[in-house]
Amino acid sequence: MPAQHDIASAENIARRRHGQNVLSQIDGHQGEAVVDSLADISPALGHHVAAFAFGDIYDRPGLDPRSRQLVTLGALTALGGCEPQLRVHIGAALNVGISRDEIVEALLHAAVYAGFPRALNATFTARDVFSDRDSAD
Amino acid sequence: MPAQHDIASAENIARRRHGQNVLSQIDGHQGEAVVDSLADISPALGHHVAAFAFGDIYDRPGLDPRSRQLVTLGALTALGGCEPQLRVHIGAALNVGISRDEIVEALLHAAVYAGFPRALNATFTARDVFSDRDSAD
Amino acid sequence: MPAQHDIASAENIARRRHGQNVLSQIDGHQGEAVVDSLADISPALGHHVAAFAFGDIYDRPGLDPRSRQLVTLGALTALGGCEPQLRVHIGAALNVGISRDEIVEALLHAAVYAGFPRALNATFTARDVFSDRDSAD
Amino acid sequence: MPAQHDIASAENIARRRHGQNVLSQIDGHQGEAVVDSLADISPALGHHVAAFAFGDIYDRPGLDPRSRQLVTLGALTALGGCEPQLRVHIGAALNVGISRDEIVEALLHAAVYAGFPRALNATFTARDVFSDRDSAD
Amino acid sequence: MPAQHDIASAENIARRRHGQNVLSQIDGHQGEAVVDSLADISPALGHHVAAFAFGDIYDRPGLDPRSRQLVTLGALTALGGCEPQLRVHIGAALNVGISRDEIVEALLHAAVYAGFPRALNATFTARDVFSDRDSAD
Amino acid sequence: MPAQHDIASAENIARRRHGQNVLSQIDGHQGEAVVDSLADISPALGHHVAAFAFGDIYDRPGLDPRSRQLVTLGALTALGGCEPQLRVHIGAALNVGISRDEIVEALLHAAVYAGFPRALNATFTARDVFSDRDSAD
Repeated sequence: MPAQHDIASAENIARRRHGQNVLSQIDGHQGEAVVDSLADISPALGHHVAAFAFGDIYDRPGLDPRSRQLVTLGALTALGGCEPQLRVHIGAALNVGISRDEIVEALLHAAVYAGFPRALNATFTARDVFSDRDSAD
Repeated sequence: MPAQHDIASAENIARRRHGQNVLSQIDGHQGEAVVDSLADISPALGHHVAAFAFGDIYDRPGLDPRSRQLVTLGALTALGGCEPQLRVHIGAALNVGISRDEIVEALLHAAVYAGFPRALNATFTARDVFSDRDSAD
Repeated sequence: MPAQHDIASAENIARRRHGQNVLSQIDGHQGEAVVDSLADISPALGHHVAAFAFGDIYDRPGLDPRSRQLVTLGALTALGGCEPQLRVHIGAALNVGISRDEIVEALLHAAVYAGFPRALNATFTARDVFSDRDSAD
Repeated sequence: MPAQHDIASAENIARRRHGQNVLSQIDGHQGEAVVDSLADISPALGHHVAAFAFGDIYDRPGLDPRSRQLVTLGALTALGGCEPQLRVHIGAALNVGISRDEIVEALLHAAVYAGFPRALNATFTARDVFSDRDSAD
Repeated sequence: MPAQHDIASAENIARRRHGQNVLSQIDGHQGEAVVDSLADISPALGHHVAAFAFGDIYDRPGLDPRSRQLVTLGALTALGGCEPQLRVHIGAALNVGISRDEIVEALLHAAVYAGFPRALNATFTARDVFSDRDSAD
Repeated sequence: MPAQHDIASAENIARRRHGQNVLSQIDGHQGEAVVDSLADISPALGHHVAAFAFGDIYDRPGLDPRSRQLVTLGALTALGGCEPQLRVHIGAALNVGISRDEIVEALLHAAVYAGFPRALNATFTARDVFSDRDSAD
């Protein structure tokens, strides 16, 4: 019987695939790109982003995707220095139906708790994401 | 004409009162207690919690109270060391209609981004708030 | 009567203009550039940077601009990941009469509390600001 | 077939039990107490502390327990506000064979990167853990 | 010749004593209490708080004590979870001639950069320090 | 007798040289580059990186270099926004005998405590360092 930590076991391949399906429904390619981009350096980190973060947690029924993305925007803005992850999750927020105006409002709201510098950095990241979407149209 | 920074001006008294009304609709007494508790040490901080945080920002129409509280829970969990503010905002989350199960789920979701220690501290704070509510019934 | 949160009301236009005047006295163009740069993506965030951060808080008489900038340098260094805001505020520190040597000393002092990596990042940002000033002469 | 997120599935019960076994080998009762203490408020968080943090990650063969605890001490000291988790992991560090002197030295080392206040708080937490051990003898 | 790291060498005893003198001039007993309180658990951390933080850095001529304490208040407020160190440094701020009103104003100013929760926690700590001083009179 | 803070004193030149020797043994040129790169902007910060961080702390006998680097990786990953310092210390970790696989595993381990975004940023930094080493061969 393979060890639980063995990411090449049938069970873990199934868990990872399920997480990738959850991720695909939210964020077509950019999120999956994060997982792929880890294949050479840390396949286990890529596995757990998919299997744990999306398969185990994001997919839980207790909170709708819109609510999850609002929590995520608050957390990533407050953490700071997470601009690459904010890009992914601002995109995911759009994908689950949060409007551009609501995203910008959420980042303004976060200024009260995390301070203006964090909110400014997050807002400039949002502009980049929106701009990329406009260019892709 | 009084200076903009003069918190005793008629304009600022009106702004503060409006913010306190917004706050009262969300969080009856506990939130207002924060403002009152600043009267002796920093009335200006109390003013801006009411006038700015609630009157200017929270009251904006671009995001519903439920969404604002989800962003706040994400931010406060990620910041860490904000247990007193988490108590106020877990209470406010309940008041705007977020269920206990959804709050607990939001804090589990935050573990992915802010790590397990932050999520554990926030979850234990949620238990205290729920327990206080049960005792008050 | 317009809502308090309406940033297009006469009251809020006056509050924003006052904040922009405060900002102009400290930091000629770079600070105002931050406000302008938000016009397309989050005019409300730009409004509150001017009206709240500068008009309400910075302009208060209880602390001189030199002291405010020292608090700001300590806070931004400790937060980390706020290099764009550090650029603005190292420039503002120079503008209110804090010397280059004092700024560099303040960032060394912050190393004791925020650790060497944060102090190093802030010091390299200071070098960029000083270098830009030299080039502009 | 039960959903991956269903913590009552046979697969997840097995994953959780495995994680609890890993945890028991490191930290007899205090670590398990964290899991038990979540049973009423967030059984899913308790599940993932056991199944993910210990069963999936801690148990991986790529890094020995001593090394894992050193990384953990560095991370928890730098995060700040994680004194309850530091208590658990300073105890776990002792259990995997890191001496008291080495733990204290690790926290002094962290002062260089995270600043003296974080190192002081972590060191006072270490004293509490050592003192509890002495009392228990 | 003793190693540089040997805190019992004559050179390091002199460095530590000098740092303790610097500290005594700022903060009579409370700061020294921090050093003494480390004697049993981490004498090396106590040594470096005195010899490095106060003897090497605080004593440098490039910035006056008032300015150093303002940077420190900004950094400690932004870090969060450093209430014990804030107590010491709010006391030190009073000792170097920063008034109660200026301290409270500095913490309000920090709210712009570090968010309201951090400013609230720091302000409540200031109230405790002021109250202790009043009781001691 | 020169002041303790005088970094041009014979004593401080000796302390700095000793720290630079410690640093050279760990990290040939990249670490020393950090010190040199501060010569124009903050020689005192460069002095204390060498004399304090490496001469006073890193050189202490109570913890082996491997253990110190593991604490450092945990701390820098958790702090966030310290990618330049992570580059130096991932290189130093390789130099003291921590394998690439162990470094990547340490960063995955840190995800449990500091969250996935911090671990992702650190892992991408590790890839850059490894890639630079491969190019240099």
